[in-house]
Amino acid sequence: MLNGVFILFCLPTSFFFSEGDTFALLIASATNLNMGVILWYFTRDHEKKLRQKDGYIIVTLGWLALSLGGSLPYLLSGAIPEFSSALFETISGYTTTGSSVLNDIEGVHKGILLWRSLTQWIGGMGIIVLTVAILPILGVGGMQLFMAESPGPSASKLHPRITETAKRLWYIYAAITLVEVFALKIAGMTWYDAVNHSFTTVSTGGFSTMNASVAAYPPHIHYIISIFMFFGGLNFTLFYYIIKLKFGEIIKNEEFRFYAGLVIFSALATTVSLIYLGYGTEWEQSFRDSLFMVISIVTTTGFATADYTTWGYFMTLAFFLLMFFGASAGSTSGGIKIVRHVLIAKNGITELKRILHPTAIIPVRYNGHAVEQKIIYNILAFFFIYLTVFVVGTIVMTMYGYDLMTSAGATISSLGNIGPGIGGVGPVHNFAGFPESAKLFLAFLMLLGRLELFTILLLFMPAYWRRT
Amino acid sequence: MLNGVFILFCLPTSFFFSEGDTFALLIASATNLNMGVILWYFTRDHEKKLRQKDGYIIVTLGWLALSLGGSLPYLLSGAIPEFSSALFETISGYTTTGSSVLNDIEGVHKGILLWRSLTQWIGGMGIIVLTVAILPILGVGGMQLFMAESPGPSASKLHPRITETAKRLWYIYAAITLVEVFALKIAGMTWYDAVNHSFTTVSTGGFSTMNASVAAYPPHIHYIISIFMFFGGLNFTLFYYIIKLKFGEIIKNEEFRFYAGLVIFSALATTVSLIYLGYGTEWEQSFRDSLFMVISIVTTTGFATADYTTWGYFMTLAFFLLMFFGASAGSTSGGIKIVRHVLIAKNGITELKRILHPTAIIPVRYNGHAVEQKIIYNILAFFFIYLTVFVVGTIVMTMYGYDLMTSAGATISSLGNIGPGIGGVGPVHNFAGFPESAKLFLAFLMLLGRLELFTILLLFMPAYWRRT
Repeated sequence: MLNGVFILFCLPTSFFFSEGDTFALLIASATNLNMGVILWYFTRDHEKKLRQKDGYIIVTLGWLALSLGGSLPYLLSGAIPEFSSALFETISGYTTTGSSVLNDIEGVHKGILLWRSLTQWIGGMGIIVLTVAILPILGVGGMQLFMAESPGPSASKLHPRITETAKRLWYIYAAITLVEVFALKIAGMTWYDAVNHSFTTVSTGGFSTMNASVAAYPPHIHYIISIFMFFGGLNFTLFYYIIKLKFGEIIKNEEFRFYAGLVIFSALATTVSLIYLGYGTEWEQSFRDSLFMVISIVTTTGFATADYTTWGYFMTLAFFLLMFFGASAGSTSGGIKIVRHVLIAKNGITELKRILHPTAIIPVRYNGHAVEQKIIYNILAFFFIYLTVFVVGTIVMTMYGYDLMTSAGATISSLGNIGPGIGGVGPVHNFAGFPESAKLFLAFLMLLGRLELFTILLLFMPAYWRRT
Repeated sequence: MLNGVFILFCLPTSFFFSEGDTFALLIASATNLNMGVILWYFTRDHEKKLRQKDGYIIVTLGWLALSLGGSLPYLLSGAIPEFSSALFETISGYTTTGSSVLNDIEGVHKGILLWRSLTQWIGGMGIIVLTVAILPILGVGGMQLFMAESPGPSASKLHPRITETAKRLWYIYAAITLVEVFALKIAGMTWYDAVNHSFTTVSTGGFSTMNASVAAYPPHIHYIISIFMFFGGLNFTLFYYIIKLKFGEIIKNEEFRFYAGLVIFSALATTVSLIYLGYGTEWEQSFRDSLFMVISIVTTTGFATADYTTWGYFMTLAFFLLMFFGASAGSTSGGIKIVRHVLIAKNGITELKRILHPTAIIPVRYNGHAVEQKIIYNILAFFFIYLTVFVVGTIVMTMYGYDLMTSAGATISSLGNIGPGIGGVGPVHNFAGFPESAKLFLAFLMLLGRLELFTILLLFMPAYWRRT
C-alpha cells in the first residue's frame, strides 16, 4: 500500500512532462494497492501476539515485498524490461545503495526517474526507524549500544514509544530534504532536479537524474550536496541537539568526532595527493573533488564528481578502504559504521593493556562510559561476519570471471550500500553489463548489508526454525 | 654465540666445494662468537629477577640481534653486498619466511647457501620453543589456548619444565629433518640438496638452492616434500601421539581435522579448477601442482612447483585467501593459524544463537571444552590487529607506487611468513628490485608476524614503559 500511495505522487510529474509513462505508473500504483489490500485482509487478524523472533522475518520479507512491488513501474513502462534488472534497480533504491543498470539515465521518462529517486527517500525513512527503533529491540545493529548503555543521545531517551520516535525523526528527515530542495533550486537547479537530488542525498542513496551524476552541475552545487551528504551521515538523534542549539553535546559525542575527523583528514590527505599528482587546473578543484568524493563514499551515498580510480594505486586503495567505514549508526548510511570501528580499535588497544596487566579488568570506554563486554563481543562477531560475507562475495564474483579489483569493488559496493566500487565498477561505470544472476546476487548483498547482516543470516540458522 | 657455532657447521661444506667463501664464513663465525661473549659478559650478572614484562623486549631484541649477526656471511662474502638486503635475507631466514633478494641463487657459493638454509632451520627451532613454551607465559600466541584450557595435548602436560619441553620438541624436529634428508637422497637428490631442502621444509621456510625452486626436481620429489611440509604445519605436540601410535588422539584433535580438511578440500578444488582450465598434459600434473602449492601456502613454506597467479582470477584470489590461514598453532608455520580461524568462526555462529536467546549463556566449545571468553576476546583482538597491520602495510606499499595486488601480496607474504605473494611478487618473482627501505619495512612485518604481533606491538605502548 505504501508503494501504491507513493507511486501516485509521481503522477503529477509524469502528467506534466507527458512522456508517456503515466499509464504505466497508474497501473503500477493500482497493482500495489490491490496487493497491499489483499495482504492486509489476510493478516488483519491480530489475535496471535508477535514474538521478538518474528521480527527478523517480518523485516526481511517486508523489505523484499516492497522491492518486488516497487519494480513494477520499471517493468510496465519498459524502462527496464528484464525482471532481475528491475529488481536490482529497486533493491538498489530501497537499500539506498545507488548502483544502477541504466546506461542512459537521461533517456528515461521523468515520472519513472522520480519514482527511482523516491525509492531511495522511502528507503532512508525505513532505515531510520529500523536502526533507531526496531533493530535494537531485535538485538541487532550498532544502535543497540545506545539502548543498552545510553551514553549521550539514546533512542529510548528520545521517546519511549516507537511510533512517536519514528514520527519525530521523519519530521527531521523531511525538513532537511525540504531545506536542500530550496538550496539546490536557489543554486540554479530546476525544481525537478532539485527534488530528485534532495531525495537521494538525505537518504545517502546516490541516484542522479544525470548520466554524469553531480559532475553535470557547476562547482557551487558540489559544495551544497557535500554538506547535505554529511548531514545524511549523521546520527539522526543528534539533530535534536541541533534544533535545541546544544552544539556542545554534539562535539562531545565520540562517534561524531571520529566521523568529522575521518572526513576532514581523508579530504585533506586526498587534496594533498591530488595537488602532488598535478590534478586539475587549480587547487580548488583538487579540494572540491576530494571533499565531495570522500563524503560521498564515507556516507555511502555514491554521487560522483570525479573518478578516484584514475588517481593512482594509493588513492584507489584509500577509497576502497573508506568503503568499509560507513558513517554514523542511526543515520541513513550503510557500511560497518564508525562506532563499530571505534570500539573494535579501542578493544584492540585495551587488549594490549590486558596482556600487560593480566589480572586487571580493563573495560573499553565510549562517550565516558564503560561498554559491556557483551556488546564488544557482538560487534567483533559482526565485523568478522561482515568480512566473511565480503570475501565470499568476492569469490563468487571472480567465478563470473571478473578481475580481483572489480570483484572486490562490486561486492563491497553492494554490501556497504555505496554504489560505485573500484576496478570495472568505478564511479563512471554501472552494472548494466553484469549477468542477470550476478545482479540478483549483488542485490541480495545489498539487502544483507542494509539489514545489518544478522537480521537475514538468522533466518538461515536451523535454531531459528526450531520450535521453542 | 648461537650464530657463531652454527656458521662453523657450514665450514666443511664450504671447504669441500672450495668456491672461495670459506674465509668469509670463518670471519663471520669469529665475529659472532666475539660479540656473543661480550654480550654474555656484560649480562652474566643474574641478580635481578626477570619480570614477565621483560620477556617481550628480550624476545624481540634477541631475534633482531640474531638476524644482525646472521647477515655477516652474506656481507663478508659479497653474496649480498647491501646491508639492508642482507638483513632482509637473514630476517626472511630466521622468521622462516623464505622471501629472497637473490636473482641467481645457483650462482651463490654453496657454503653461503647452506648458511641461508640453516637460518631457517634455526628459526624453526626458535619458533617451536617460542610458541609452545615462551609466548604462552607472556600471554601471547595461539598456544595459550592449550595452556589455559588444556584440551587434549598441552604444553604443560608434556613436561612442566620449559628446557625439558624444548629439548623433547627439538629431538622430534631433528628426527623429522633426518628422515627427510634420507627420503630426498633416496629419491635422487644430492646430499647437499637433500640437506638444504630438509632444513627449509621442516621449518616451513621455503628457501631453495635452485632458481626454479622445487620445480627443478622430478615429480616424485614434489610428493615427498608435500608430505614433509604438511608435517611442518602440524602442532609439534601431536608428534607425541604419533610416536606412541595413538592416532585416535590426533584424529580427535579439532585443529588437526580443520588443517587436514582445509588442505584436502583446497587441493581437490584446485585440481578440479585446473582440469577445467585445461592445465598441463594430464590430470596427475594438475593434482600434484595443486596439492603441492596448497600445502606450500597453507603451511607458509613458500616452495614453488607452479605459478598460481597464472591460473586466473578465481585461483589467484583463492591462494591469496589461503595466505591468511597458516597451519596449526605450535607448528613452525606463520600466518593467523587455523585454531584462531576455527574459534572466530565458531564465535560468529554462537553470536547468532546468542541473539536468538539473549538470556542464555552459550560458550564456544573447542575439543569438547568450553573456551573462556577472555581467550576468544584475545583472538578476536589479534585478528583485528592482524588485519589492521595488513591494511597499513598494503597502504605503505602502494605509496612506493606498487599496484594493489603486488602491495597486498608483498604485505601478506611478509606478515604471514610465507614467501611468495600475488601480483608482482608471485612464486616466480623475488624482492631484488624493491627499494632498500621497502625491504626493511617488509622485514619488520616478517618479525611482527613471527612474534605474533603482540610481542612487538606491546613495546610501542606507553603503558609498557611506565614504571609500576
